[in-house]
Amino acid sequence: MSTRTERDTFGPLEVPSDRYWGAQTQRSIQNFKIGGPAERMPEPVVRAFGVLKRAAARVNMQMGVLDRRQGEAIVSAAGEVAEGRLTDHFPLVVWQTGSGTQSNMNANEVIANRAIEILGGELGDKSLVHPNDHVNKGQSSNDTFPTVMHIAGVTEIERRLLPALAHLQSALEAKQAEFAHIVKIGRTHTQDATPLTLGQEFSGYATQVAYGIERVRSSLPRLAMLAQGGTAVGTGLNARVGFAEAVAAAVAEDTGLPFVTAPNKFEALAAHDAVVEASGALNTLAVSLMKIANDVRFLGSGPRCGLGELSLPENEPGSSIMPGKVNPTQCEALTMVCAQVMGNHVAVTVGGSNGHFELNVFKPMMARNLLHSARLLADAARSFTDNCVGGIRANESRIAQLLHESLMLVTALNNHIGYDKAAAIAKKAHKDGSTLKQAALALGHCTEQEFDAWVRPEDMLAPTP
Amino acid sequence: MSTRTERDTFGPLEVPSDRYWGAQTQRSIQNFKIGGPAERMPEPVVRAFGVLKRAAARVNMQMGVLDRRQGEAIVSAAGEVAEGRLTDHFPLVVWQTGSGTQSNMNANEVIANRAIEILGGELGDKSLVHPNDHVNKGQSSNDTFPTVMHIAGVTEIERRLLPALAHLQSALEAKQAEFAHIVKIGRTHTQDATPLTLGQEFSGYATQVAYGIERVRSSLPRLAMLAQGGTAVGTGLNARVGFAEAVAAAVAEDTGLPFVTAPNKFEALAAHDAVVEASGALNTLAVSLMKIANDVRFLGSGPRCGLGELSLPENEPGSSIMPGKVNPTQCEALTMVCAQVMGNHVAVTVGGSNGHFELNVFKPMMARNLLHSARLLADAARSFTDNCVGGIRANESRIAQLLHESLMLVTALNNHIGYDKAAAIAKKAHKDGSTLKQAALALGHCTEQEFDAWVRPEDMLAPTP
Amino acid sequence: MSTRTERDTFGPLEVPSDRYWGAQTQRSIQNFKIGGPAERMPEPVVRAFGVLKRAAARVNMQMGVLDRRQGEAIVSAAGEVAEGRLTDHFPLVVWQTGSGTQSNMNANEVIANRAIEILGGELGDKSLVHPNDHVNKGQSSNDTFPTVMHIAGVTEIERRLLPALAHLQSALEAKQAEFAHIVKIGRTHTQDATPLTLGQEFSGYATQVAYGIERVRSSLPRLAMLAQGGTAVGTGLNARVGFAEAVAAAVAEDTGLPFVTAPNKFEALAAHDAVVEASGALNTLAVSLMKIANDVRFLGSGPRCGLGELSLPENEPGSSIMPGKVNPTQCEALTMVCAQVMGNHVAVTVGGSNGHFELNVFKPMMARNLLHSARLLADAARSFTDNCVGGIRANESRIAQLLHESLMLVTALNNHIGYDKAAAIAKKAHKDGSTLKQAALALGHCTEQEFDAWVRPEDMLAPTP
Amino acid sequence: MSTRTERDTFGPLEVPSDRYWGAQTQRSIQNFKIGGPAERMPEPVVRAFGVLKRAAARVNMQMGVLDRRQGEAIVSAAGEVAEGRLTDHFPLVVWQTGSGTQSNMNANEVIANRAIEILGGELGDKSLVHPNDHVNKGQSSNDTFPTVMHIAGVTEIERRLLPALAHLQSALEAKQAEFAHIVKIGRTHTQDATPLTLGQEFSGYATQVAYGIERVRSSLPRLAMLAQGGTAVGTGLNARVGFAEAVAAAVAEDTGLPFVTAPNKFEALAAHDAVVEASGALNTLAVSLMKIANDVRFLGSGPRCGLGELSLPENEPGSSIMPGKVNPTQCEALTMVCAQVMGNHVAVTVGGSNGHFELNVFKPMMARNLLHSARLLADAARSFTDNCVGGIRANESRIAQLLHESLMLVTALNNHIGYDKAAAIAKKAHKDGSTLKQAALALGHCTEQEFDAWVRPEDMLAPTP
Repeated sequence: MSTRTERDTFGPLEVPSDRYWGAQTQRSIQNFKIGGPAERMPEPVVRAFGVLKRAAARVNMQMGVLDRRQGEAIVSAAGEVAEGRLTDHFPLVVWQTGSGTQSNMNANEVIANRAIEILGGELGDKSLVHPNDHVNKGQSSNDTFPTVMHIAGVTEIERRLLPALAHLQSALEAKQAEFAHIVKIGRTHTQDATPLTLGQEFSGYATQVAYGIERVRSSLPRLAMLAQGGTAVGTGLNARVGFAEAVAAAVAEDTGLPFVTAPNKFEALAAHDAVVEASGALNTLAVSLMKIANDVRFLGSGPRCGLGELSLPENEPGSSIMPGKVNPTQCEALTMVCAQVMGNHVAVTVGGSNGHFELNVFKPMMARNLLHSARLLADAARSFTDNCVGGIRANESRIAQLLHESLMLVTALNNHIGYDKAAAIAKKAHKDGSTLKQAALALGHCTEQEFDAWVRPEDMLAPTP
Repeated sequence: MSTRTERDTFGPLEVPSDRYWGAQTQRSIQNFKIGGPAERMPEPVVRAFGVLKRAAARVNMQMGVLDRRQGEAIVSAAGEVAEGRLTDHFPLVVWQTGSGTQSNMNANEVIANRAIEILGGELGDKSLVHPNDHVNKGQSSNDTFPTVMHIAGVTEIERRLLPALAHLQSALEAKQAEFAHIVKIGRTHTQDATPLTLGQEFSGYATQVAYGIERVRSSLPRLAMLAQGGTAVGTGLNARVGFAEAVAAAVAEDTGLPFVTAPNKFEALAAHDAVVEASGALNTLAVSLMKIANDVRFLGSGPRCGLGELSLPENEPGSSIMPGKVNPTQCEALTMVCAQVMGNHVAVTVGGSNGHFELNVFKPMMARNLLHSARLLADAARSFTDNCVGGIRANESRIAQLLHESLMLVTALNNHIGYDKAAAIAKKAHKDGSTLKQAALALGHCTEQEFDAWVRPEDMLAPTP
Repeated sequence: MSTRTERDTFGPLEVPSDRYWGAQTQRSIQNFKIGGPAERMPEPVVRAFGVLKRAAARVNMQMGVLDRRQGEAIVSAAGEVAEGRLTDHFPLVVWQTGSGTQSNMNANEVIANRAIEILGGELGDKSLVHPNDHVNKGQSSNDTFPTVMHIAGVTEIERRLLPALAHLQSALEAKQAEFAHIVKIGRTHTQDATPLTLGQEFSGYATQVAYGIERVRSSLPRLAMLAQGGTAVGTGLNARVGFAEAVAAAVAEDTGLPFVTAPNKFEALAAHDAVVEASGALNTLAVSLMKIANDVRFLGSGPRCGLGELSLPENEPGSSIMPGKVNPTQCEALTMVCAQVMGNHVAVTVGGSNGHFELNVFKPMMARNLLHSARLLADAARSFTDNCVGGIRANESRIAQLLHESLMLVTALNNHIGYDKAAAIAKKAHKDGSTLKQAALALGHCTEQEFDAWVRPEDMLAPTP
Repeated sequence: MSTRTERDTFGPLEVPSDRYWGAQTQRSIQNFKIGGPAERMPEPVVRAFGVLKRAAARVNMQMGVLDRRQGEAIVSAAGEVAEGRLTDHFPLVVWQTGSGTQSNMNANEVIANRAIEILGGELGDKSLVHPNDHVNKGQSSNDTFPTVMHIAGVTEIERRLLPALAHLQSALEAKQAEFAHIVKIGRTHTQDATPLTLGQEFSGYATQVAYGIERVRSSLPRLAMLAQGGTAVGTGLNARVGFAEAVAAAVAEDTGLPFVTAPNKFEALAAHDAVVEASGALNTLAVSLMKIANDVRFLGSGPRCGLGELSLPENEPGSSIMPGKVNPTQCEALTMVCAQVMGNHVAVTVGGSNGHFELNVFKPMMARNLLHSARLLADAARSFTDNCVGGIRANESRIAQLLHESLMLVTALNNHIGYDKAAAIAKKAHKDGSTLKQAALALGHCTEQEFDAWVRPEDMLAPTP
């Protein structure tokens, strides 16, 4: 493999000739052989570095502290990073220094070398563009990394997760409308209960998702605060007055998302409570989706020995041994994702609680888990919607059959004959294997006419007018 | 022990004569011997039942479906429950039916019997006041229990937790002001870094708590939604139209808290995402407080072999073997509470994700953990404030000594001589055990005048104007 | 309230006259108002202090460093603590100093004062028996508290949890035998699958519990190691050579449990990995029991609109609104306990990971959660066994009906006609609503004789001979 | 892209010509677009499929149910999978069906097609080698996937994790020996305490790792049990008697690891408690390593404003803004890994608890997390050992200076003058800023000769002989 020599304050080091990264990136590759390529810094973080470094270069030029020719080259190079065109030049894994310094230097080195190339120089010639003095100007890893955590987090949530949730909510609401007329037995404690419509049941799911969207949104104001401008410890040493605000404004304009500068930079470097909070919103969402997916698979259980109220789309053969079997695989993928999100949330919680003094050094791990959860939930919600929810059909005859066998219709008698007599009827029918009406008449607690007038599932779906 | 006979639909049962509870409560005592008295339903749940049953009786009277004499007796009896005067009559543990039905029946039975007593009747004479037909009128455990979960949760948060957090925030802000003038060394990665003021450091803590309050508040709108009116499965069967809204209004008026009826009752019975969400806010708070308490104990470590920047109040002897030892015990109590809250949150998450069909049956466990976390955080925050934060003193001479020994003041040179030369100075000083100035002059990177003008801790506390 | 004056190194303090505790306990009451009486140190910890202090006094007398008269009084007083007769004199909450120092001093003070009383002295007269110099002789909180954590943990596990698990295992094995002849449909992915016997299904549950017992047992060797003898930091300063071994032997003899002295006392004070490990075993057990309880409630769902294969015992009325409803309440209590144990395990994990230098200061919290989990699991397993498992009946007619409707019996054809043709049969039957035999014959993939010979549920219960 | 047509029971489908996978794999690619390539099934699972399918083919040939020519081709093809040479042909993500059926079919299809190629046939010509009828012969996804979970888990633990832990233990023990003579101040509650040697301190760490190895080992007996032979629901339908045992023996021989057939196959399919248990052992290990890494970074904090007792190796520049800064980056990577492992454990716990009836359908997620944790811990432990522990140096002069300033040496006086007088000395010295000796003499509690004889750090390192 062809190499060139790069240098940092620790000395010279060989790096692959066809890569833009420099000595500090190479050093991290050698010192952190943990987990392999699957553990690389998530791409949204890499792209966010491009967004940030471009914004910083623009602001530095505006402030007159960065030469325009260097600055424009940096802007171009950073733009390529932002567009994902240089992601192969970001080889570092999450399991590095806890400040993300090495990924910040990876960004600085790649952008500097690409800018040097744009300017016609030779890779590694820091006299043209220096990774620290120019690309990182006015910045520290300690403020850039939390900044890209927030940029990446808000972007993934706004651009990927929330649209997927809205898509799911729409699909559930469509089913709510489609199933509005289907009266079915309710189940509480997994046991037969009073009736409701299938549309009402789906309205509960749609509401969960709608609230989930609210929950995620309510965590964004604090996630949209950017640490940039705090530099090393939060004081802003070596940054210019106004740099923080200008960078946040530039990032907001570039992304079209409501980023602002964090009012307190000490908090923004030393604590990542905003990431814990956002992860908590995703955890709640996982709880909601677990419930929905579980219901769907149980209501669709069968085809002959389960509840059988729903038919789920058949997307693939279900078993390598049982021919003809079709399984609720989308529910399974989704619930596995939910379990993962719950676990990721604990990792974020542990990392968030272990900051010390002016810096939390669990940053890459926290970013990884927030982004992992957001991506998995978004993709799984979309897959679940498109490959399952949209194609759910109600088995109306089965639903009707179960409804009319139920004993819990007896509840309609409470207001007429009292709880204790109603209970006696249900118990007798259960014991005898008879219908409620037979038991009611046998016990003499009402007449047949009364029974027929009082016990009507279609009248049991709403409060008494 | 003297007993009397009570009855339910399962038959007669002996209960202690001096207790208001009835047969269903007694049955639960016998069937759920899990954990003993320490595991009883939390008192805020019991009180919330009082609040709810009083509101329901009033609404039922207004709607003309409950006799006024019975209703007023119920209102009186429920009031005693709301005030905590009958808590000894609530013997049931959390580990019962997952709908909380038995605690709802406990409330119905106690209130019915107390109301019977008020009316001059004999305990157990359900013809006077019936636990189901009168006290529970228009209600089901499935809507009352989630209602009291929310009433208790919002009340504990509003009345106990948020005031304690505000108290802590004030104390931290007072220290922020008191310490505004004290320049100290910063620490990142636990290693020496550039300076900041001790006031700036405390501003980070105060901001964490301020955001924590915002986070908790932002979860309340959904926790303030009451399930009451959904009855058994969310349809509202056997309740009157308007009952849901009227009860929520009555509870809101009674408590002075902004309760509203839940727009979708199916969600409100089958999912407790709002509890998971609120618990998530407490989890984030635990993360914040863990960070603050850890910093305080490390900054106060010593007295002679630690960082020694802070002196914490000495509240008690610290060691049974090491005489004169004083320990950061308030930090320890608080961080233990934080770990507990993180664990409680996982329990809530697991419970919340396991609802099925029309009912989540992890209700008492979820309520217990939310209330446990809120209470512990409130009490520990207050104890930490009063017994620790308020009495923290800065050891100014120690702080000054550390500041001036630090090598990271070299960062001030970046903008003057570049990162690489500055690094060489710091490395030389570290290697030689010399001061930065000695190293800088020896390397010839600046003059003494320049060094003195450039390296001034008091000029390193803010961005460059 | 009548008081007397007690003293510690911080000065005099009033304590209630009728309580044996002294100044340090009283100081903790005043400084740690967190959570109230429900948060008191668990009783097994208090009793273990009695066991330990008695053992220590005996060893100190044997070694000739404790006066025999004082020593015997201490032995008597500590015995009363061990028997639970003085538990009311242990008012401190878990949320105190993280070393448990205050509870150790509570034990020292109560035992000293009770010993003084036994010797005819006046409470508080430390010249007779001194809490530190005599009761705590050769000890530190830093070694006594981890010692009592282990004594209490092993004792609760051995005496309470393991017998309850064995009881449950027996009950499940009895059902395994009772149900050995009942062929039923299997369910995978919640969907119909090939048959098995109900006895086989229960054998899986019994095996889970059996392995659970193994798992808990495999964690005990390290939990049976006692820190006693490490004193303040693990070196054993101020203890005598041999004290550690002798105390462990005395505790082992007293309890009949295999306690030994920890080979490395530095690990034993600074880390509580053994508690995390034991909690992990309980977490795995919670996972197992959650699975079993979920299956039982789903298999018992109905009575008419669920799976209905099992009938669970009816222990109490199930609903305050739906007359005659019976719910799987024991399953619900058990699964709530399981969720709690999973949460407790995270709290233990967080606490265990946050030790620093020579001492972990999350001790009381860790002890509390381990003991809480053990107690809840033990009680819930016993309640579930006695009030549910023991009374489960199989609904044989329902089971037979479902079995014969199933399409997955088609799997028996794989080895005869190949997977693809078998799949075609199942799909046709599903689409037509026909039986498998009808579909097989219609497709011509086998003759009626072949079908009858090949598709026999009772031949599908084991590998092919 | 060039494609060929493959078929399954759902119909024909185009797959890339240069890939061995077939229709079912392709269907999964299309139906589960969740997370992208980073979420592919972990390589150890893919390799384990190779191991298993080779073993199964051999046993099937021995049993005479698989043609020798087909069988040998399968053995060859499976061998290539086992060696990792066909990993690119396994494109499926973890987030698929929860039984891992699609990955089992992926293995069946790849091996079938590669075997067809070896036999000179055309890809997709199932008449030569059929993925279900030949490669999957006697198997079901429901037993193969848990089998590969266990094969992969035990292999990664035995081959990767345990050697890395042994390597770390050795390095810690080497430091224990190297530092055996260095007396230093102890710290409890982060506060100064009585002395110990640095070697003793490291002995605690070495013991934690040694116990960690024991813990992991103690979970392996149940993880070494293979589900193979249970087929669809645990009964072994369509497998031959003896197949289970023979496959386990073949896998054991092939891998050199002690695999056995699971005694109860119902448990082995429906529950993955063994994975939860193993993950629990890794969770405890994470707790241990978090403690060790935290201590190392705090003891190495500075260089001038921290504890400064240790010097850690300088592996890379530490800061993009603070020149010359060196950070404990290996500690940071390790502690981030530990947090991740704690989170992964919760995901495994949630998945493990959610099995239903005859099958747990969180299999791929559980496998992923166990393998992720094992890999990260192994790599991070090795990186920490090689790049940090091995190069730790003790700063002896700093250690000596701190030791002699400490007040906690006063503890040596307890046995001579009693706790209360010793406490008075320490408090006076603390208040006056004087030495202990000065305070002791001023208070008249001992003579200078006594003080010098009694207070000797080198005599405070062990129990009194």
